[in-house]
Amino acid sequence: MAKRVAVILSGCGLYDGTEIHEASAILVHLSRAGAKVQMFAPNGDQMHVVNHCDGNPTEEKRNILQESARIARGDVTDLAKIDESQFDAVIIPGGYGVAKNLSDWVVKNKDFIIHPHVEKLIKAFHKAGKPLGMCCIAPILAAKVIAGCELTMGHDKVSETWPHAGMTSAVKDLGSKHVNKDVEEAHVDVKNKMVSTCAFMCNAPIHRVFNGIGVMVNETLKLA
Amino acid sequence: MAKRVAVILSGCGLYDGTEIHEASAILVHLSRAGAKVQMFAPNGDQMHVVNHCDGNPTEEKRNILQESARIARGDVTDLAKIDESQFDAVIIPGGYGVAKNLSDWVVKNKDFIIHPHVEKLIKAFHKAGKPLGMCCIAPILAAKVIAGCELTMGHDKVSETWPHAGMTSAVKDLGSKHVNKDVEEAHVDVKNKMVSTCAFMCNAPIHRVFNGIGVMVNETLKLA
Repeated sequence: MAKRVAVILSGCGLYDGTEIHEASAILVHLSRAGAKVQMFAPNGDQMHVVNHCDGNPTEEKRNILQESARIARGDVTDLAKIDESQFDAVIIPGGYGVAKNLSDWVVKNKDFIIHPHVEKLIKAFHKAGKPLGMCCIAPILAAKVIAGCELTMGHDKVSETWPHAGMTSAVKDLGSKHVNKDVEEAHVDVKNKMVSTCAFMCNAPIHRVFNGIGVMVNETLKLA
Repeated sequence: MAKRVAVILSGCGLYDGTEIHEASAILVHLSRAGAKVQMFAPNGDQMHVVNHCDGNPTEEKRNILQESARIARGDVTDLAKIDESQFDAVIIPGGYGVAKNLSDWVVKNKDFIIHPHVEKLIKAFHKAGKPLGMCCIAPILAAKVIAGCELTMGHDKVSETWPHAGMTSAVKDLGSKHVNKDVEEAHVDVKNKMVSTCAFMCNAPIHRVFNGIGVMVNETLKLA
């Protein structure tokens, strides 16, 4: 029977929402594996809107669910309505939306709070022994909710290849273990059923990011 | 030497801009083939902004270049500044942005006008014998500019698999030839160096759309 997977979006665009290519890669790999996918996003305002040409915030307001619908081709559901029992796995792509809309990490760092619907979801899946797949910055959510889990955001030493390596301290500061992995690898925390890959945390060609997400998706499905 | 490819965006989201997954697939396949990519988009207002949850237009205004930057991760250039001599091929993903921002097809149908920078680009590449790759609805641009070329938008008979097959008449009405092809195929017009694939014109799983775009990208690169 097809595995039923919930994909959690947080907008549309890496600087204020979901990283588009991570979401797209997740959907391609899930489709190839024959999974049944439903997309969800919180129905509320984005923290802010960023002009993706210059990186600066604008005065606009945008709704997380409506912007996520651009990635979902219209087929996205309010996260408040999710019935966890109907899914075998959850996957959360990265992008600053994770740290701005699914949580307030960019404002409060390690004292951050997770969107209540997202926190409830992660707790319910963990309790039920169902896997959670993540990429890029999304592991901060798991690190906060499930203390002591093992996650990767790539390598933890800053270099040209790993410009965002400093972010790995976010996982460590929360009492979880960061495991160094390359862009085409995923780390599997078998005990906690958590699968992560660094995606665009690595300065790599997009097809290698795509491949790494494929590993994460397939390892997540194996645990489902 | 790496092939230099210009990818032309028209916003971010299928109903008022570039179809996100088509653009992402193009970038993944170009990256895997070792091509050097630069993205471009017109710097001007979108025709309108569509709420992608309900499909209705809103009162918002958005800039085509800024929205395209969501797909381009910030790295997109005003199409007015393109130097055609610096590229070996052009690829144009689909989405209604093609028919709303790169042209006014949705308003005027076969009497439509193409954005002057896009028309200039297609003419220049055709004249120089350089290939143009397209997917989904993008072939309407080639059909308008280069009379008598061969293009595919999938199948021309409406069915559950081909809900948008009526769109193929747009190509025929302009005096070009529509060639039926399946979702994982591309049509190559060798004489005019035009390569097209139907992408989301077909009601197919996203990984098959991804595969078809891969064929289109690789056939385009072969002609470059």
